[in-house]
Amino acid sequence: MDVDRSLPAEGYRLRIGPDRVRIVARDEAGAFYAAQTIRQLLPDRAWRAAPVPGPPWDLPCAEIDDAPALAWRGGHLDVARHFFPKSVLLRFIDLLAAHKLNRFHLHLTDDQGWRIESLRYPALQEIGSHRPRTRTGHSSDRPASYDETPHGGYYTLADLAEISAYAAARMVTVVPEIEIPGHASALLAALPQFGSGPGGGDRASADWGIFPQIMSPLPDTAGFLGDIFGELLGAVSAPFVHIGGDECVLDAWRENPVIEEYRRSLGLASAGELHAWFLRRVADTLAGRFGARAVVWDEGFASGAGTPGGALRPDTIVMAWRGAGIARRAAEAGHDVIAVPVVPTYFDYSQADDGREPLAIGGPVMLRDVAAFAPGALAASWPEHAARRLLGTQFQLWTEYIPDSRALEYMAFPRACALADVAWSGGPAPSRGAGGWHARLAAHLGRLDAAGVEYRPLDGPRRWQEGGAGPRRHRPGYRIADVTAHLADIARRPDSG
Amino acid sequence: MDVDRSLPAEGYRLRIGPDRVRIVARDEAGAFYAAQTIRQLLPDRAWRAAPVPGPPWDLPCAEIDDAPALAWRGGHLDVARHFFPKSVLLRFIDLLAAHKLNRFHLHLTDDQGWRIESLRYPALQEIGSHRPRTRTGHSSDRPASYDETPHGGYYTLADLAEISAYAAARMVTVVPEIEIPGHASALLAALPQFGSGPGGGDRASADWGIFPQIMSPLPDTAGFLGDIFGELLGAVSAPFVHIGGDECVLDAWRENPVIEEYRRSLGLASAGELHAWFLRRVADTLAGRFGARAVVWDEGFASGAGTPGGALRPDTIVMAWRGAGIARRAAEAGHDVIAVPVVPTYFDYSQADDGREPLAIGGPVMLRDVAAFAPGALAASWPEHAARRLLGTQFQLWTEYIPDSRALEYMAFPRACALADVAWSGGPAPSRGAGGWHARLAAHLGRLDAAGVEYRPLDGPRRWQEGGAGPRRHRPGYRIADVTAHLADIARRPDSG
Repeated sequence: MDVDRSLPAEGYRLRIGPDRVRIVARDEAGAFYAAQTIRQLLPDRAWRAAPVPGPPWDLPCAEIDDAPALAWRGGHLDVARHFFPKSVLLRFIDLLAAHKLNRFHLHLTDDQGWRIESLRYPALQEIGSHRPRTRTGHSSDRPASYDETPHGGYYTLADLAEISAYAAARMVTVVPEIEIPGHASALLAALPQFGSGPGGGDRASADWGIFPQIMSPLPDTAGFLGDIFGELLGAVSAPFVHIGGDECVLDAWRENPVIEEYRRSLGLASAGELHAWFLRRVADTLAGRFGARAVVWDEGFASGAGTPGGALRPDTIVMAWRGAGIARRAAEAGHDVIAVPVVPTYFDYSQADDGREPLAIGGPVMLRDVAAFAPGALAASWPEHAARRLLGTQFQLWTEYIPDSRALEYMAFPRACALADVAWSGGPAPSRGAGGWHARLAAHLGRLDAAGVEYRPLDGPRRWQEGGAGPRRHRPGYRIADVTAHLADIARRPDSG
Repeated sequence: MDVDRSLPAEGYRLRIGPDRVRIVARDEAGAFYAAQTIRQLLPDRAWRAAPVPGPPWDLPCAEIDDAPALAWRGGHLDVARHFFPKSVLLRFIDLLAAHKLNRFHLHLTDDQGWRIESLRYPALQEIGSHRPRTRTGHSSDRPASYDETPHGGYYTLADLAEISAYAAARMVTVVPEIEIPGHASALLAALPQFGSGPGGGDRASADWGIFPQIMSPLPDTAGFLGDIFGELLGAVSAPFVHIGGDECVLDAWRENPVIEEYRRSLGLASAGELHAWFLRRVADTLAGRFGARAVVWDEGFASGAGTPGGALRPDTIVMAWRGAGIARRAAEAGHDVIAVPVVPTYFDYSQADDGREPLAIGGPVMLRDVAAFAPGALAASWPEHAARRLLGTQFQLWTEYIPDSRALEYMAFPRACALADVAWSGGPAPSRGAGGWHARLAAHLGRLDAAGVEYRPLDGPRRWQEGGAGPRRHRPGYRIADVTAHLADIARRPDSG
């Protein structure tokens, strides 16, 4: 392997001749990706964990000059709604890396569970890491039904250090997320003193949705968060830390006289401004104490945008899930942006409009929607200063309806393959011919088979992947129209931009 | 590493001095086990998948001469009642190997699922590998309840080759099992022509228990089994092949005139003799065509023992699950024997008599029961020619009530650690002092933590490991007394010895 500093970041030059293989790269990532390309050129059985009988491996001669169009190419996993053991995360990282994805956004906290060990606040894992039961079916189903089976788990700080190191060795940067100030029921069950008023439960939520009880923005809470981030970032080497900021109903702040007084003392005009101010304060802590950049969901940008006290730290990255409009506004305001539109990057949505599919939050977000995605072209009509703010994209795996690792692989693959394709190339993936995504994906499925990935076959679920007639049955009423209505509803909320 | 042919098989001499580490072994397994011992002497974090911060690893000076008391030290996993993805099996093998266990008994077929790809009989995986729903709670619960969620999966022949090669690289021999002639509902749903009469279902069973429909012993079935074993053993390098033989109700043979006529034509006096004859015929095929030795559950020995036509092949290994009496009788009859008494080697039984435990088939089989087990002393009172037939022991993980990989680790560990201890030493594990199993296991749990194993803590389940109030709730009526009654009931069956 040779180094050529004139190559683009993460890029490589690969020459496979009859006598030798030559890799030239600018950086370690480029060399790693050349090796992943070689792995794709080998027979499928090179993706197995041990050699199996067969003819010798042939590696075809090739000349490949390659580099990614986008710097941020990621996969998100929500381990709060359902917990996944460390071994599942390590395998997930292997699969991200094999697809040349370089960010693992680990959504570690939410209403339904807190997944990070704290030595200073052990109630977080003792109380916040589990729930006695879990809602089955949609949160709109009446009557509500529950599985009455406990669920939980958490990662020790050493586990998180290991996950981070394991990922780094595979050129994947872990982006840990602690949700602030909403989606905090599990935290507040353990440490109610950091809430903004009465009404929190005494355990992590067994339901899905958006809950009224949120963290307070007072100095005690900020101090606590500094402690927690100190513990987390003492374990995980994280240049980027996601701090949430989404789906936060601020009524509890407005109804709390102490918080209202605090807001006024800061000279802030609204709870929305206070929301943005609080995110900025936490981002300042991350930058000042840990040298890390904050990432927020786009509500974190929208809630204070255009107000005197409401601007985020300039270096805060905005993850735009509610469409290209908010992505552009954030970029025009000078923020780096990750484009994660619900369609087609929310892989918790069903993969087809078909009654055989297992229960999902909505849908469909089809494989062809992902392949047609062109994140690299999203900013083509933006002003140049905004366009260069678009860092990339990632898929999202929210896990309300993904109860275990088998369901996880079903929902992730093969859509993650298509996402990786368009994130690397800029997209869209060409649809026809030998180089089209259909043909390339069909060949790639043999590699996934060898790796034991339980993906969704192109013609629909295997019989045991279907939703059946029980709690995981498909709800035909949930279609993409509902997603649109849901997003419109969120957009109408006063504090949500 | 040096070779010393005078050392016992799998044994090693390990010298760790200030300047160097020296390993002497007779065989590759011995060297591998010396390495496992070194791994145990390193800090717990050596068991992680990536380096985490901490002081340099210290390796204490040591002089260790070690060798196993028993040649067969195994773990069994039923992937028929619940399917576990290949990645789970590879991890299971890693954990077996780390505990110096050298057999992975893979129970691949049963009433509830057929898990082996067949190129010649694809209906096996197309029909036999899944069921539309699964019974929840005990099979004696009334009314019956089901989860109404499809379940299934199978391993391709390439997967099985990979699993076998992966295991072999870790000194673990895979012992694949195809159940003959009972526990065959999944097979017979796919290929009813190999049944012994009407009454089979058209899909794998969603219930637990013993079913009346069994394979026929006719030449067509024997030919089919030869084909299937040919496919399996073309993929898996298996010196031992388990062919079941347990819990087989032979009424369907007695009621079938063609089978009765066939029995008489063979000069056999009873269906029980035909049962043993059929197992012997399959064992002959395994030996003659594939050079493999058959293993049977002890009913396979008992059903024909002492009858003119009922003797098994002399080299057939008997896995004695119904106690020391049947183990001794089989050994006295000249069979190699694996001692797998329900208490304490059936790890599907609960780990404590406690309402917090998740649903299990019965119990408890407590950790201390396993630590007190002395498989090496079982044969102390046997005649010498029988005593040397006792090859070893293994734990059993039947998975009716083990729905996923997290539950699997909970039921397997730490009992598997204790089983590995007594299988290596001959047992029992000393109970007191610094070298006692309490102290050693307490230290070992730190290694399991590092490896991310979701074991049962010594003081009971973590909150999310409890059975809860739903389908996995503990049934207090199931106690070891019921196990005794169950075994007595099985022993009373005419064909079951």
